[in-house]
Amino acid sequence: MEIPTFKRVPRHLGLIPDGNRRWATRNGLPKEAGYEKGMNPGFEAFELCGELGIEELTIYGYTQDNTKRPAAQTRAFQKACVEVVQGIARMDAAILVVGNTESPLFPEELLSFARERRVFGKGSLRVNFLINYGWLWDLSKASGSHSLVNGLASREVSRIDLILRWGGRRRLSGFLPVQSVYADIFVFDDFWPEFRPEHLYEALSWYEVQDVTLGG
Amino acid sequence: MEIPTFKRVPRHLGLIPDGNRRWATRNGLPKEAGYEKGMNPGFEAFELCGELGIEELTIYGYTQDNTKRPAAQTRAFQKACVEVVQGIARMDAAILVVGNTESPLFPEELLSFARERRVFGKGSLRVNFLINYGWLWDLSKASGSHSLVNGLASREVSRIDLILRWGGRRRLSGFLPVQSVYADIFVFDDFWPEFRPEHLYEALSWYEVQDVTLGG
Repeated sequence: MEIPTFKRVPRHLGLIPDGNRRWATRNGLPKEAGYEKGMNPGFEAFELCGELGIEELTIYGYTQDNTKRPAAQTRAFQKACVEVVQGIARMDAAILVVGNTESPLFPEELLSFARERRVFGKGSLRVNFLINYGWLWDLSKASGSHSLVNGLASREVSRIDLILRWGGRRRLSGFLPVQSVYADIFVFDDFWPEFRPEHLYEALSWYEVQDVTLGG
Repeated sequence: MEIPTFKRVPRHLGLIPDGNRRWATRNGLPKEAGYEKGMNPGFEAFELCGELGIEELTIYGYTQDNTKRPAAQTRAFQKACVEVVQGIARMDAAILVVGNTESPLFPEELLSFARERRVFGKGSLRVNFLINYGWLWDLSKASGSHSLVNGLASREVSRIDLILRWGGRRRLSGFLPVQSVYADIFVFDDFWPEFRPEHLYEALSWYEVQDVTLGG
């Protein structure tokens, strides 16, 4: 299928790739097997965003809350996240990882990505990964700072225009509370391993007729 | 219609009563006429929440962003908000107003409600009104505080379980970013002046089958 054109695309897109475990269960697999199936959709969404002219992409990897899950699951989503970041680093992207690095639950392999944004290829698409992220951790970094917005742990992540969530839940689950204040939120009932380009086209068709008011 | 019963109701419900101006336009009225039509739905929703066993209700009155609108509109939504707060103060509620009182855009009549929670009747339902509220104003109050959550301007408002929005927009528009991190969000295409009890029943039927994970 040819990529459709849109009158207006979001500058910054957020992705909440939920439903990996439910997908695994429905397919008779152990829950932790779902995360590996979520990797290819990540690469596919990244490439499509570049082709659609989206400038910045933020992917919800895993949170501090998520790491309270059974160890097999935690290891599986850590591994999937590391491989997606490393895979996208072989493409054309400027990558930043945002998350609490002062914890053994943060993968060593990603430490260099959390220090500063790293440019690969022409660095055309800015990609932020939230890895061992926590909303309270993020906001609390700003305590004692003169400016809340400039003090956030996620201060290098810009305002988000559109958030896409897979897996049917209509909630943000702690996803970047400050950058999401004005974001439109679009939810798919399909699970993330079922990602198809048509999801993105459907959401962008909806988004282009939304009235952007920024609260005004 | 008899009030249905639910296996589980949200403890704390948030309301975003949007679409007043669009309702007015569609009905051939000047935009500012929509706000008055949003008052009765407010009283009706309040009474219904009490009957359903909801413990806390937060209503998005108006924001600092909203006050940049034409003066006739600003005066109209201020008036409607004042009358709804005063009306609910004749019922059975414990009312708190949260918003920037250090501005002429905050209505004088509501100053006493912003100092501390005021109990009317038995004070059965806790009701929070956001009046001249701003998300950045709210969060910035916590700068310099040891605890982000305890430093918020809205620190007396608890975590929200379910947010209902009228008027079709799928976004939070700055509504209590911290209390909303784990909230489920349910959107009606109908405008707020078209509020019907069935909206609430529909949302609660959906909510009772949602999996509450608090990010875990």
